Amino acid sequence: MFSSDDLSSLRWDAVSGAVEIIDQTLLPHTLRWVHLDSLEAYCHAISAMQVRGAPLIGVTAAFGLAHAIAGDPSDHNLELASARLLATRPTAVNLRWALEEMARELQPRPLKQRADAARKRAIALREADIDSCSAIGDNGLALLRAISYRDTLNIMTHCNAGWLATIQWGTALAPIYKAHAAGLPVHVWVSETRPRNQGMNLTAWELQRAGVPCTVVADNSCGQLMRAGEVDCIIVGSDRTAANGDVCNKIGTYLKALAAADNNIPFYVALPESTIDWRCADGGGIPIEERDPLEVLAIAGVDAAGQGLEINLAAAATSAANPAFDVTPARLVTSLVTEYGVFAADSAGLARLKEQLGIAGDGENIG
Amino acid sequence: MFSSDDLSSLRWDAVSGAVEIIDQTLLPHTLRWVHLDSLEAYCHAISAMQVRGAPLIGVTAAFGLAHAIAGDPSDHNLELASARLLATRPTAVNLRWALEEMARELQPRPLKQRADAARKRAIALREADIDSCSAIGDNGLALLRAISYRDTLNIMTHCNAGWLATIQWGTALAPIYKAHAAGLPVHVWVSETRPRNQGMNLTAWELQRAGVPCTVVADNSCGQLMRAGEVDCIIVGSDRTAANGDVCNKIGTYLKALAAADNNIPFYVALPESTIDWRCADGGGIPIEERDPLEVLAIAGVDAAGQGLEINLAAAATSAANPAFDVTPARLVTSLVTEYGVFAADSAGLARLKEQLGIAGDGENIG
Repeated sequence: MFSSDDLSSLRWDAVSGAVEIIDQTLLPHTLRWVHLDSLEAYCHAISAMQVRGAPLIGVTAAFGLAHAIAGDPSDHNLELASARLLATRPTAVNLRWALEEMARELQPRPLKQRADAARKRAIALREADIDSCSAIGDNGLALLRAISYRDTLNIMTHCNAGWLATIQWGTALAPIYKAHAAGLPVHVWVSETRPRNQGMNLTAWELQRAGVPCTVVADNSCGQLMRAGEVDCIIVGSDRTAANGDVCNKIGTYLKALAAADNNIPFYVALPESTIDWRCADGGGIPIEERDPLEVLAIAGVDAAGQGLEINLAAAATSAANPAFDVTPARLVTSLVTEYGVFAADSAGLARLKEQLGIAGDGENIG
Repeated sequence: MFSSDDLSSLRWDAVSGAVEIIDQTLLPHTLRWVHLDSLEAYCHAISAMQVRGAPLIGVTAAFGLAHAIAGDPSDHNLELASARLLATRPTAVNLRWALEEMARELQPRPLKQRADAARKRAIALREADIDSCSAIGDNGLALLRAISYRDTLNIMTHCNAGWLATIQWGTALAPIYKAHAAGLPVHVWVSETRPRNQGMNLTAWELQRAGVPCTVVADNSCGQLMRAGEVDCIIVGSDRTAANGDVCNKIGTYLKALAAADNNIPFYVALPESTIDWRCADGGGIPIEERDPLEVLAIAGVDAAGQGLEINLAAAATSAANPAFDVTPARLVTSLVTEYGVFAADSAGLARLKEQLGIAGDGENIG
């Protein structure tokens, strides 16, 4: 369907070692690659959401750490760089997960091996993410094939959990890409995902590029579309999932899950295992990032000539609040679609996944 | 709290007969009065949403009909003008209700009396709307006084059901204005109400003007705020309510009602009796207006210098859908707050209201 290099959100050059990302804040109007050449640039890329999506944030942080310790691989610098990267975004668990993976790899090694090992581990994390997402796509495709529909299989998604949120394929969009490639007549309802409009800006852009039919709607429309029988299933991603199956994801996910339950529509969450926070007993323990109110009060777009512009929406002195995530209780989630298979969104389902992986109670591998 | 003439969405001059409305499409950035001096101007004001809100649409249509028949009060012209006004918006029942009120008043009269009678009836409908809204405010205030809260009574609303949607007071905002005037420590969560942002543009503007503390949030945030215990009750308006208590209102209302039910938060709908469509058995019979997809794909605001601008949000050739209303099932509505009192949102509750009004089964007055 697409060549791998064309559709990668973070690419690296094997010869020069250069790392480039797509500046996602400029999409869908401009496709610009940004060269990351300092720890500051990596931190800015994550905090300013040039890269976003839990899996991509993790991989970007790993490359950032590799970059930061290339000149000074001391324990002190390793801890400092890791702390700076960790502070960029509070909610996505993959950020912490990737940094811990790096520390586990690097701390036991002598200083002179660390730079090379860090780079190799970052590259391996990137490759592993691609494989995970592809497997999520295969497992999700099996679910989609089992859904009955009339002429078109209408799938709703929220925010962007496509290849822009990962490295390739995506999480929620992976089954959709695989279904489209397999000839299933899919159509995607893309909720715009205020305030940052990742649905309209990123998901619609991805799907259009891949030739998947899609329609953008205001987030408010999603309940009405479900009541009208226009939605056969919902697939979203996750920024962090608790050990009981509670799903933290982009703000507005919970409202869609409520409407899905009210209309007997399957509500799937697609995620790599790295998104599960085994140390988090339930969704109540997940910190919700509160972002700048200006994201609600102002918005960027282009004028008739295609020139980028930012405008103020609200009257001066208007107050706004901007929680970036919400928690969907596990009871509203039909199942979790991972690279290891499909699991019930409850403690028993996740215990089964844990057992399959050989993970002990504290979240560490016992194998 | 405010002088009546200052805060009226439609004003008329007793000497000249001139009618002016606020062009609400320019708010919150510009307050401009528009003189309505032709049937075309009235129809445009309604269809282009210079005026919006079920009660205000009804009163505007009444003045429009009075204007249209002033020169030619024939049955033919009466029917023609009425049909043109009725076609401007399909969902709000008050439009039909107001035009039927006018027809009932005018049809029995000789031609030469009609112009004067039409004008008087339109003025009376305007006055009646003010009285209704004030009574809704009093009845809603009693409900608000019964809610327990900590330091601040946090009320969430959706879209604009303030005085801009009526003539004065509003429906959903009337109890809030009365509570604020009575010294209750109210704070309002204003959901922006995509795609047209009536919450951010109109409700926040109204509340700020009246000194009521408020915070704008993305529609997506509303579930999370409820889960976090930040919402004590919800009050919205209605564009049409069926005889079984199903509530048609601005798109996104249903999602808030679901979240309210999931969090045991009272969900009140404030409406004048004229918004109840007694001929409509349930919400399934209410036509849902599908508006221009451009309302989703482009948006207006102001630049840093305060200059009005419209920008495109989506990439070129993006498809969008734009249903403007949804239906909230009666089971999710705590109660209906009308000018005649507070009623359960079910057939029994509305039958009690009907009995109180002396309305027969077909919706006509029997008194």
